[in-house]
Amino acid sequence: MKNQNELMIQMAVDTWNSTVKRTNDLFNALSDEQFHNEVSPKRNTGIYLLGHLVAVHDRMLPLLDLEESLYPELGDVFISKPDKAVSHSHTVSELKTKWKEVNDKLSAHFKILKPEDWMLKHSAVSAEDFAKEPHRNRLNILLSRTNHLSYHFGQVAFLK
Amino acid sequence: MKNQNELMIQMAVDTWNSTVKRTNDLFNALSDEQFHNEVSPKRNTGIYLLGHLVAVHDRMLPLLDLEESLYPELGDVFISKPDKAVSHSHTVSELKTKWKEVNDKLSAHFKILKPEDWMLKHSAVSAEDFAKEPHRNRLNILLSRTNHLSYHFGQVAFLK
Repeated sequence: MKNQNELMIQMAVDTWNSTVKRTNDLFNALSDEQFHNEVSPKRNTGIYLLGHLVAVHDRMLPLLDLEESLYPELGDVFISKPDKAVSHSHTVSELKTKWKEVNDKLSAHFKILKPEDWMLKHSAVSAEDFAKEPHRNRLNILLSRTNHLSYHFGQVAFLK
Repeated sequence: MKNQNELMIQMAVDTWNSTVKRTNDLFNALSDEQFHNEVSPKRNTGIYLLGHLVAVHDRMLPLLDLEESLYPELGDVFISKPDKAVSHSHTVSELKTKWKEVNDKLSAHFKILKPEDWMLKHSAVSAEDFAKEPHRNRLNILLSRTNHLSYHFGQVAFLK
């Protein structure tokens, strides 16, 4: 029988995992050609949003104080700059492999974190600010990044 | 100083409130004409998604065992049926008023619920099933509906 804290954390992690799984199912249903289309006229392409999600999830590794970023260079193309701002040679297949790798890393860490670990500060807040704002913790990153994924998932769904 | 349970719940409620607020800001930035456009070619119109979100949030009132649904009839048009399946006379202005009313109701309830109240079963699960699956509680509805809102928010953003 889980205690209340454990159950709450498990639910937040389950919501993350199920949102990643739904996104994987969508990504696997799209052809490379579909990924090169814009999700709506004059909006981001599927490959940009795929790269964006890999880069944002990859940055969660250091942000949650888990380990170093695997592909920090992706942020230059897929976070700092908008779609079509720079040419790049990333392929759908390569980004899908990285997407799986980064999410598997996160998921493995999430399996062993204890409820109290989630209440520790994330790495983008100072100890001083965290003392005043204890909600700026790892759980907050998990909740906001789950919603960030849902936001873009709703857009990528238009490629089908 | 909040205890750990209180802080976790507060963070989930804050994530809900901030997602509703961002959506309100977007809705307020759109003209009635924009609401009548499709968010992407051959996809849902803005007014359909607005009505859908009102209907889904309205149903949270009984689902969370808080009070009766205010506008149960909206579900017939905006949940059970796809966009353009039936003609209706709902206006953007009327749906925006209901959107605010329903979310204000939810928010008022959320302010007084205690952490342990969130761990109670929601109304769509039997006591017997809940005994075996304690995650089928009110908090689960909050987390999933926050992501549901983010999903559609990402789509309505294309109307701008």
